[in-house]
Amino acid sequence: MADFEFSIDATSSNARRGVLKTPRGDIQTPAFMPVGTAGTVKALYMDQVRDAGADIILGNTYHLMLRPGAERVEKLGGLHKFSGWSGPMLTDSGGFQVWSLAQLRKMDPDGVTFRSHIDGSEHRLTPARSIEIQADLLGADISMQLDECTDFPASREEAERSLELSLDWGERSLDAFGDRSNQTLFGIVQGSNYADLRQRSAEGVVSQQFGGYAIGGLAVGEGHEQMCETLDWTAPYLPADRPRYVMGVGKPVDLVECVARGVDMFDCVLPTRSGRHGQAWTWDGPINLKNAKFAEDEHPVDEAIDCPASRDYSRAYLHHLFKAGEYLGPMILSWHNTAFFQTLMASLRTAISDGSFPVLRSELSARWASTKSAPRTPD
Amino acid sequence: MADFEFSIDATSSNARRGVLKTPRGDIQTPAFMPVGTAGTVKALYMDQVRDAGADIILGNTYHLMLRPGAERVEKLGGLHKFSGWSGPMLTDSGGFQVWSLAQLRKMDPDGVTFRSHIDGSEHRLTPARSIEIQADLLGADISMQLDECTDFPASREEAERSLELSLDWGERSLDAFGDRSNQTLFGIVQGSNYADLRQRSAEGVVSQQFGGYAIGGLAVGEGHEQMCETLDWTAPYLPADRPRYVMGVGKPVDLVECVARGVDMFDCVLPTRSGRHGQAWTWDGPINLKNAKFAEDEHPVDEAIDCPASRDYSRAYLHHLFKAGEYLGPMILSWHNTAFFQTLMASLRTAISDGSFPVLRSELSARWASTKSAPRTPD
Repeated sequence: MADFEFSIDATSSNARRGVLKTPRGDIQTPAFMPVGTAGTVKALYMDQVRDAGADIILGNTYHLMLRPGAERVEKLGGLHKFSGWSGPMLTDSGGFQVWSLAQLRKMDPDGVTFRSHIDGSEHRLTPARSIEIQADLLGADISMQLDECTDFPASREEAERSLELSLDWGERSLDAFGDRSNQTLFGIVQGSNYADLRQRSAEGVVSQQFGGYAIGGLAVGEGHEQMCETLDWTAPYLPADRPRYVMGVGKPVDLVECVARGVDMFDCVLPTRSGRHGQAWTWDGPINLKNAKFAEDEHPVDEAIDCPASRDYSRAYLHHLFKAGEYLGPMILSWHNTAFFQTLMASLRTAISDGSFPVLRSELSARWASTKSAPRTPD
Repeated sequence: MADFEFSIDATSSNARRGVLKTPRGDIQTPAFMPVGTAGTVKALYMDQVRDAGADIILGNTYHLMLRPGAERVEKLGGLHKFSGWSGPMLTDSGGFQVWSLAQLRKMDPDGVTFRSHIDGSEHRLTPARSIEIQADLLGADISMQLDECTDFPASREEAERSLELSLDWGERSLDAFGDRSNQTLFGIVQGSNYADLRQRSAEGVVSQQFGGYAIGGLAVGEGHEQMCETLDWTAPYLPADRPRYVMGVGKPVDLVECVARGVDMFDCVLPTRSGRHGQAWTWDGPINLKNAKFAEDEHPVDEAIDCPASRDYSRAYLHHLFKAGEYLGPMILSWHNTAFFQTLMASLRTAISDGSFPVLRSELSARWASTKSAPRTPD
């Protein structure tokens, strides 16, 4: 994994600004990765994703292995060629999506058997098969170990069993991955909301020597405060010289607070999913363009964002497009939101470099306080 | 209507190549107008429409008067500003869409009362109200008179009554339009499939002195051959020095044969509607990307078309996007089809200029013969 040099260029307390070098290009960190679930960042052209400032995107192993099929993607030249994204790409292991199937999966010590949500066909993921799909067939620049995403909330016993399973699968993932210089593999820390289990998991995963480390089991209903606390417990046990990645996060306020805790990489469907539903993220917080109050609002979505989607269309026009169910509404707002998230990350990076991060952090966290996720209430 | 100079630069038998000058830019004819029903050409950015080669687009009065409302569009600066299209725009009168509502409309000698398909609210269109909406509120460069689209098939008596009503409404439309130099108004010939009624309608409409002439009541189930025959009956009675427009047409083979009969302007939802449903129009005819045979086809849609949508994505990728229900599939194919139709029109224009039109016409009409619409069979 020698080609994946990671350098920290500036810090502000625990926050770090750096560059992760990959054979397909540099990734400025902290980085937000747009999610290209099925080989497309929904409703965006890849050049819009790139021009918005994204250095890297994410692909979903679960979706791609079911459709069009990992072997087919490989036959068609790999996921980069297939999807038209030439920059770095990270794939998840498929484990998280399988975990979310709940009724359709069966875990065993060697892997997980599940049914496709598309056609009910049976499939199996093991640590080795996940690596084969990600690294060999899709051709991911960064692969993720297969892990078990612990249910939330989980008993201490369950969290312990689960983290041990993930450690074992991490080892098997490394064995399957072997020695590659053009690709790298990240491990995943579990441990639910138990400080000592997070430490135990982190120390275990770090001892396995991955190219980077993800903090898993977050964004599953624990809420903003618990997520921050979990990062406070975990980050000190991760090596300073390797990238840290929080999967599936998050809202802008989450990104700010995770960056403050030393996280370098993120991914989330929020920008595009919000965009498809009429929600725009702006410096003043989220607004829903379907709201009648925008019907005659001639302002652009957010003129502070240097993107045609943010500047060139009135809120009134977007309101109309959503009311009329036109494609162009989701297209423009997904693009704007993608640009907004990239602009936010660029601002955080600049603030870490020039010393203004503490001020920016407290301003943004105060401004966006009302958007913090509350813990999931029991059913 | 002095600013709408129309010049014929070349002819090939009845086919003509020309330029219609408008205050918002020149329109190369024969021209195909992409349809921007609700202030957006479905699934395309306006710069894609422009870069594909379109000089002019069409807006639908019916859709826009219901949502967002013509007065609201006017308040927001007119349809050009609202939608972001700065070139020439033609609007239909609303009559055709109201006609297609069938059960929801009531005609009388002064206009038509109808119910919105969106919320059931009652609305009324008269010749004067249609002009007010198109020219004053939406700000169309080219408005169309309100007419009654004759049912097809129609008895001779019904066709006669209907064409007289349209002539009367044409006169009222002209009165409402008055004297404008920055906008123009087109009349519409009716007469169903009766040669002498087409002549009578054409002579009547032409005597009213419009800026251009549409041949209406086509593309309503009469089939390709009847459409061509109707044009043969009608075109000789239209002045050579004004543009001729066939509304709602059509397939590529229709465009070729209508151009051969001296038609200068067209509009149709086919490129974008086909695109949303997985169908691509190519020089080799239409193909449906949903078909399993494209699942591993690495060729682009049609590399002979100079458009990113046509060249930069494999058929296999498009097949996948449609199977997965991703936005990007309709986005790319609507864009490709729009570029294909514009490329076809440019080829026809060039062929008229350089003398190769007869050869190109017979080659394309033979190649696309199987796509000709058959007459609608009786229910």
